[in-house]
Amino acid sequence: MFSLAVPTALRPPPMLGLSPHLDPAGRFRRSIGLVAARPCLLPPILAVSPGKETTETVDLHSAEASNGSVLGKKNLVMSTVGNSTNILWHECPVGKLERQKLLKQKGCVIWITGLSGSGKSTMACALSRELHSRGYLAYVLDGDNLRHGLNRDLSFKAEDRAENIRRVGEVAKLFADAGIICIASLISPYRRDRDACRALLPDSTFIEVFMNIPLEVCEARDPKGLYKLARAGKIKGFTGIDDPYEPPWDCEIVIEPKDGECPPPVAMAEQVISYLNNNGFLQEQL
Amino acid sequence: MFSLAVPTALRPPPMLGLSPHLDPAGRFRRSIGLVAARPCLLPPILAVSPGKETTETVDLHSAEASNGSVLGKKNLVMSTVGNSTNILWHECPVGKLERQKLLKQKGCVIWITGLSGSGKSTMACALSRELHSRGYLAYVLDGDNLRHGLNRDLSFKAEDRAENIRRVGEVAKLFADAGIICIASLISPYRRDRDACRALLPDSTFIEVFMNIPLEVCEARDPKGLYKLARAGKIKGFTGIDDPYEPPWDCEIVIEPKDGECPPPVAMAEQVISYLNNNGFLQEQL
Repeated sequence: MFSLAVPTALRPPPMLGLSPHLDPAGRFRRSIGLVAARPCLLPPILAVSPGKETTETVDLHSAEASNGSVLGKKNLVMSTVGNSTNILWHECPVGKLERQKLLKQKGCVIWITGLSGSGKSTMACALSRELHSRGYLAYVLDGDNLRHGLNRDLSFKAEDRAENIRRVGEVAKLFADAGIICIASLISPYRRDRDACRALLPDSTFIEVFMNIPLEVCEARDPKGLYKLARAGKIKGFTGIDDPYEPPWDCEIVIEPKDGECPPPVAMAEQVISYLNNNGFLQEQL
Repeated sequence: MFSLAVPTALRPPPMLGLSPHLDPAGRFRRSIGLVAARPCLLPPILAVSPGKETTETVDLHSAEASNGSVLGKKNLVMSTVGNSTNILWHECPVGKLERQKLLKQKGCVIWITGLSGSGKSTMACALSRELHSRGYLAYVLDGDNLRHGLNRDLSFKAEDRAENIRRVGEVAKLFADAGIICIASLISPYRRDRDACRALLPDSTFIEVFMNIPLEVCEARDPKGLYKLARAGKIKGFTGIDDPYEPPWDCEIVIEPKDGECPPPVAMAEQVISYLNNNGFLQEQL
């Protein structure tokens, strides 16, 4: 019915200045050292002038066959969202519920907020480890790590911080939709930004964890040396120093010192797991 | 050791103009109709003037305890990436390999590219369904769907299209890192944008699928009526009409008509599954 291009079994990394050629079997392969573009077997599909009408209508694969059987026409809704026009929402036959059944868990977002040095990453890692050891699939979205990739174009200006959080919220939503226990760990100092992320998620699947550790404790820890830099005026707009942190009004979980002692990582993780357990996130989904 | 705020068991959706209050048990709850902010039990952590030095250094939870045991100091590397300064990469003890072992599959990105109407979404859904029925965890990132959320701020201008693809690539990378078979389905007309996404992924985990369906066939299908609008000049910069599509030079899989027939969805999916199977993506990871 159709052909399948045989893959390059051992593909050299594409950043080496590669260009494709055909191997003796007529298959495309990359090679090292040939930087000039080789002619492409598959001719580019050129833009045609907008006024030109296509008279050839070879209906090899009708719209019905293309969409009716798998997508279903009912699943196509044209809309304009933000700056995107003429976009359609596609619903796939395998949904969140099916993935949750496969994983025997319920997708959600654990949103860990708090000052720098309050233990957010420690909590995220400990939680990820404890969940994994029990056979659950969790994934950590770390604010700093995402700034190495998805959010590398964003600075720490107010509007960029908001956009940073919005994007993490949107990605966390995708992970939860995939059925995963998504652990987002970022300072997220403003209530409105966190609440906007909460609003993205279906009811009760956004679980906010506030690391309520006093500024003095965080600053004394200063694991990254950032408070020292902020105090010296070398970092501007640093949360807790010259930019405010707004604690949650009604988060699901608060981690705080008791009798002057901060809880150890495993105990923090166990408290979140206990919440997940009590609220049906760690059981087979029916 | 620490306290746990009891969660609101049935939380109303937060978009209704809610504000929190304490319920009779002293727990925070949202209520409908109270829009004015109520006082917060947890006092805001105010910004202090940059010049003010903290003399109180209550080291309840030392940097060693906070980072040494779980993160490990070796895992903290300060860097500047793009517009982000003073960011640290945190490595969690549960990595891609551990998640892959749990899932008994290898995380990767199946990148489906092709003209509008070439069957990308059909392929993505069929593949997702076939993988799921075999017990594998896959997740579809649909270009149009993401424009309803993560990429809602982007238009169809050239630079926004590139940013759209960059973000999908970065998110797909996260999903692959989570151990998931991530199916990205978007026109992605320019080779350089697709290659930039390929470069994000570890070698051989970016699997490009080119829907090589002739423009005439796609236009005859016109499942969304977009070609008609583009021909009428109501959509500008439409791929294949007044904007070019650059076919891949050496993609892993090409789907194309054979003997004038386009393959049905399940057959397309089976070909990708066969590739995944032959390349060790669908087996227990050691």
